Amino acid sequence: MKIAFQGVPGAYSELASRALFGAGAKALPFDTFENVFEAVDKARGGKGLADRGVIPIENSLAGSIHQNYDLLLEHHLHIVGETYLRVEHALLALPSARFQDIREVRSHPQALAQCSRFFAEHRNIKPVVWFDTAGAARSIAEEKPDDVAALASEYAGKLYGLKALRRGTQNEAGNFTRFLAIARNPSPPPRGSKHPCKTSIAFSAKNEAGSLYRILGVFASRKIDLHKIESRPDPASPFEYCFYIDFAGGTGEANVKQALAELRGLTRDLRVLGSYPRALLPKSKRNSNSRTSRKP
Amino acid sequence: MKIAFQGVPGAYSELASRALFGAGAKALPFDTFENVFEAVDKARGGKGLADRGVIPIENSLAGSIHQNYDLLLEHHLHIVGETYLRVEHALLALPSARFQDIREVRSHPQALAQCSRFFAEHRNIKPVVWFDTAGAARSIAEEKPDDVAALASEYAGKLYGLKALRRGTQNEAGNFTRFLAIARNPSPPPRGSKHPCKTSIAFSAKNEAGSLYRILGVFASRKIDLHKIESRPDPASPFEYCFYIDFAGGTGEANVKQALAELRGLTRDLRVLGSYPRALLPKSKRNSNSRTSRKP
Repeated sequence: MKIAFQGVPGAYSELASRALFGAGAKALPFDTFENVFEAVDKARGGKGLADRGVIPIENSLAGSIHQNYDLLLEHHLHIVGETYLRVEHALLALPSARFQDIREVRSHPQALAQCSRFFAEHRNIKPVVWFDTAGAARSIAEEKPDDVAALASEYAGKLYGLKALRRGTQNEAGNFTRFLAIARNPSPPPRGSKHPCKTSIAFSAKNEAGSLYRILGVFASRKIDLHKIESRPDPASPFEYCFYIDFAGGTGEANVKQALAELRGLTRDLRVLGSYPRALLPKSKRNSNSRTSRKP
Repeated sequence: MKIAFQGVPGAYSELASRALFGAGAKALPFDTFENVFEAVDKARGGKGLADRGVIPIENSLAGSIHQNYDLLLEHHLHIVGETYLRVEHALLALPSARFQDIREVRSHPQALAQCSRFFAEHRNIKPVVWFDTAGAARSIAEEKPDDVAALASEYAGKLYGLKALRRGTQNEAGNFTRFLAIARNPSPPPRGSKHPCKTSIAFSAKNEAGSLYRILGVFASRKIDLHKIESRPDPASPFEYCFYIDFAGGTGEANVKQALAELRGLTRDLRVLGSYPRALLPKSKRNSNSRTSRKP
């Protein structure tokens, strides 16, 4: 099985691919999310180079990646799985490097920002931006500097023969990313499957209190739990909104079928993005760097 | 009036500050969002260096910036305004530079990715990552290379004496960011104000169909329109969710007061983040680069 992901080998997306499909699947790196969709798709310019794709869809600090929702809608691919990955950056350097010699640390700006307290505590270490976390690790392996390190996953470090001088350097221990597996064909878990199932849908509606209230009534009256709801304004039509909803259950179940049929009458352009086994959010472990409470 | 923003002079956040407070207000640059909150806050380690802060809260492609919601909750500051800014990157170079000589383009990885089609069409131009868009523009002004350009706003170009070799280089014309103005004290528009008002709230609740349905009933029964709804899982308590809702009306209005009182009984930790004049989403103009339809 070939799995397309965005980034270079060692990227967090490759880790997610291993979590979803095992270490035996062949993970193929692509430059952009668009290329990942094109690699899986066979229509719309796609070549079907890969059997599945793995894309990040939301991060606990940075929010939903709307761009990937757009690509899901554009490509008519199907969500067939999900996984949550904790974002844990390690400070990676050559096996011969010593922490006290490190003067420069390379990583993606978001990763550098996530480790801002590390840099505040080590003023003599200069953060340097890189295209991606795993690419920063690879550059250390290629250039072999003794005084430069990278911030990336420990997995990237192993891949490039680097050692972790520090682990868990991010400010916030509770930072995780949700990844989706996408495929050309839907594969809803079979009816009666023991594993809890989740379904993702997208639709357009007015973001009035009344219209959304009626839409949620479709789920409430059938005691279908929601896992996510998000509205997104459409600049092309200011009074219409796109909604993303994830709910419990699969399209094979009778009450889900009825709910979707009723939703068609209340929404526009309803799309079932996929039914798939539900992954559990990893339980948060707070580290000493964590300061932010997420409670309102 | 002093306005804190994240980034270097010429950043999109500074543009948002000018849109909100005029060119006369003094915009003060800070390294991180946390520093912006601390600059406005006088409690929690803050020094009250600025009267207001301006922060991005959501982008049409990249989604909500949850980190800034966290900081809003942590710092007990108040939203006092909002504005939408279209993200339009220009290719900025020295006045003496010619497009055909450009070999390298510097910018933030997100801006480079937003202009991926430009790079696909100009294979001889190498994208180079930089900490931020305006910082990339500043580096051109400082180093004065004839064959290097930056992707940033035209405003940043003017600030650093650069000319725009190309305008609107991003793939997607409908890309905009919503910015919030924050202050130490709430300033809800006066009752009877002609300008439409918006209120932002955050609360915790179970993300069951039934509980959210009852919560939206509070708005539906009073015909209060919603402008945004978003759920966010809390890794620390897997069955509780944080919700963000923006709705029409201000806290000075009787039906809003009643709705908030009723909400307190249905939610936990309800926080009113602020009431403020509502900004309109800029109408989308599609450019020839746009391929993605946002319709489900």
